[in-house]
Amino acid sequence: MGILVVGSIALDSVKTPFGEAREALGGSALFFSAAASFFSPVSLIGVVGRDFPRAEIEFLEKRGVDLSGLEVVPGQTFRWCGSYEYDMNEARTHRTCLNVFQDFKPKLSEAHARSEFVFLANIDPVLQQDVIAKVREPKAIGCDTMNFWINGKREELLKTLSLVDIMFINDAEARMLAGVPNLIKAARAIRKLGPKILVVKKGEHGSLLFTDHSVFAVPAYPLEDVYDPTGAGDSFAGGFMGYVAAMGRWDEATLRRAMIYGSVMASFNVEKFSMERLKTLTKAEIETRFKEFRRLTHVDEFTV
Amino acid sequence: MGILVVGSIALDSVKTPFGEAREALGGSALFFSAAASFFSPVSLIGVVGRDFPRAEIEFLEKRGVDLSGLEVVPGQTFRWCGSYEYDMNEARTHRTCLNVFQDFKPKLSEAHARSEFVFLANIDPVLQQDVIAKVREPKAIGCDTMNFWINGKREELLKTLSLVDIMFINDAEARMLAGVPNLIKAARAIRKLGPKILVVKKGEHGSLLFTDHSVFAVPAYPLEDVYDPTGAGDSFAGGFMGYVAAMGRWDEATLRRAMIYGSVMASFNVEKFSMERLKTLTKAEIETRFKEFRRLTHVDEFTV
Repeated sequence: MGILVVGSIALDSVKTPFGEAREALGGSALFFSAAASFFSPVSLIGVVGRDFPRAEIEFLEKRGVDLSGLEVVPGQTFRWCGSYEYDMNEARTHRTCLNVFQDFKPKLSEAHARSEFVFLANIDPVLQQDVIAKVREPKAIGCDTMNFWINGKREELLKTLSLVDIMFINDAEARMLAGVPNLIKAARAIRKLGPKILVVKKGEHGSLLFTDHSVFAVPAYPLEDVYDPTGAGDSFAGGFMGYVAAMGRWDEATLRRAMIYGSVMASFNVEKFSMERLKTLTKAEIETRFKEFRRLTHVDEFTV
Repeated sequence: MGILVVGSIALDSVKTPFGEAREALGGSALFFSAAASFFSPVSLIGVVGRDFPRAEIEFLEKRGVDLSGLEVVPGQTFRWCGSYEYDMNEARTHRTCLNVFQDFKPKLSEAHARSEFVFLANIDPVLQQDVIAKVREPKAIGCDTMNFWINGKREELLKTLSLVDIMFINDAEARMLAGVPNLIKAARAIRKLGPKILVVKKGEHGSLLFTDHSVFAVPAYPLEDVYDPTGAGDSFAGGFMGYVAAMGRWDEATLRRAMIYGSVMASFNVEKFSMERLKTLTKAEIETRFKEFRRLTHVDEFTV
C-alpha cells in the first residue's frame, strides 16, 4: 500500500567536521520520500519556490514517488543553514529562511485523501491536524515533531498527538515533552497522550520502540564516520513507515522489523552529505545491512 | 573455574535524587565479588581498616567468596562521598579518603597465584601489573580503569593494557584514552594497545562488545527508577567475568552471553542503594531478567 507524506522541502547548507554542502537537497519530506520509496509507493505533499532545481529530484520520480502534490509557487524555496560539531548529536542552526514554506497550506487530491498510510513530518501541528482532517480512512498515521513546536505550540501539538497512531521523537525532545528526565517514564507519559506506538531516536545510541506489549531496542550501526546527520530522523521514519505500509499491518513483529529498516535507512543516510547516499542506494544493500543489524544483537541458543 | 579479583573496598556515602546512604558497603572489589559469586567461586584481594564492619560482608562468605585475601590493618577504611544528579550518568565526587588503601600492596597466596581467571578492578595500573606478574598461568585477565589513571598514569596504564585480554571501560573514558571522538574508532585504537576483547559501557545506553570478529550491542534494561548507579560498572564486570570463568572459555558465543549477564547484574545493582539489591538477589531472578534482555532485541523470523 502507498504512503502519503507531508513536510518540508529545503535547500540546506551544512557544515560538519568532514566537509560541507551548499544549497543541497534537504527537508523532511524529501528525506522521508527517498527512504520510504524503497518499500512502498510514496506521494509527497509540499511546496517549493520557482528557484527549486526540479531536475535534482528526478531520481525520486524514477523510484515511483508521486510528485503531483509538489506545489511550485512564486518566491524562494525554504533554506536552512546549520553545522555540527564532533559529537554530531545536535545541529546548530545558523539561519532559517522559511520563504515560500511560511504560507504552506497542504492541498490533497482525491487520491491523496484516500491514502491508507500517512506521515506528518516535522511541521506546524496545526497543519498536521489539517492533513489528518482531510484523509478519509487512514489505517495508520505517523508524525514527527521538534522542540520548536513542543515549546511554542504545545496545546496544538497535544491535539495532534491525540489523533495519531505512531509518533517519532528524539530522546531529548521526549524528555522535554513529558517533563520527566527518565526516558522510560517519558515514553509512558507520551503514549498516554495518544500515540499507541512510540519510537524514540537516540542518535549514536540507537532507538527504542514502545508498544502496549513491550520495549524493543535497536542499537545504532557502528559507523566510524558520520559525514552528515541531517535527515537521519526523516530517513528513519521513511524506512519504518515505508515498510509498515508495504506490509499493510502494524503488529508487533512488523513494527520490530520496521525499526530495523528505519535504522538501516538512517545509517546509510549519514554516510554522505544531503541525499547523496540515498540516491545511489540499492535494495540489495538495504537487505545486507538489515542482516548486519540482526547480527549486532544476535545471541546463539545455549548449548553446552 | 574460580576468579580472583583485586580492587578497592570502601564505605560510601552517596546522595541521589532518590535518597541517600551513609557509610554503606562499596568499592570495586565488593561489587564485583557480589555479582560474580552467582556464577563462579570468587577470591577477593583487598584491604580494610580496623573500623570495617566485617559482619556486613558475611553474605559474601555465604555465597562462597573466599575472603582469605582480605587484609585488615590498623587505620581507617577507604571512604568515598559522592552524589548524582538526575541524569545519573556521572558521579560528582565530594571527598575521597584513601586511608589504608593508600599503602595497599596486593598479597597473593599460593592458591590465589594459581587462579585461571583474574579481574583487576579500577586501581593504580602499577598495582595491576604487580598482580599480573604474580599470577602463574592465567587463562584470561580482565581489567577496568578510569579517567584518573588515563590522565595521571598513562604510560603505566598502557603497559597494563599490553598485558590484559579483556578491558572494561566507559564510553567517555574510551574516547579520552584513544583521543578520538568516534567510539568505534576509539574501540579499534584501544584494542591495538593490547586487549583483544573490549567492553564499552554506556550507562543508560547499554554496552558494546568489540572482538576480532564483530561488534555486539546490548541495550540497557528499561528501568523507570535508577536509585543509585554506584557500582554498576563493577557489577557488570562481575556478571561478565563470573560467567566467563564458569564456562572456562571465551569464544564469541560465550562473550555475547557474558555481556547480557553483565547487563543483568548492573541493572539489578542500580535498583537500590549500595549492595542492598545484590544481597537479596536470587539465581532465578537473574535468569528471568536474562530472558527479558533477550526479548528486548528479539525479532521473529520473517513469515508472510
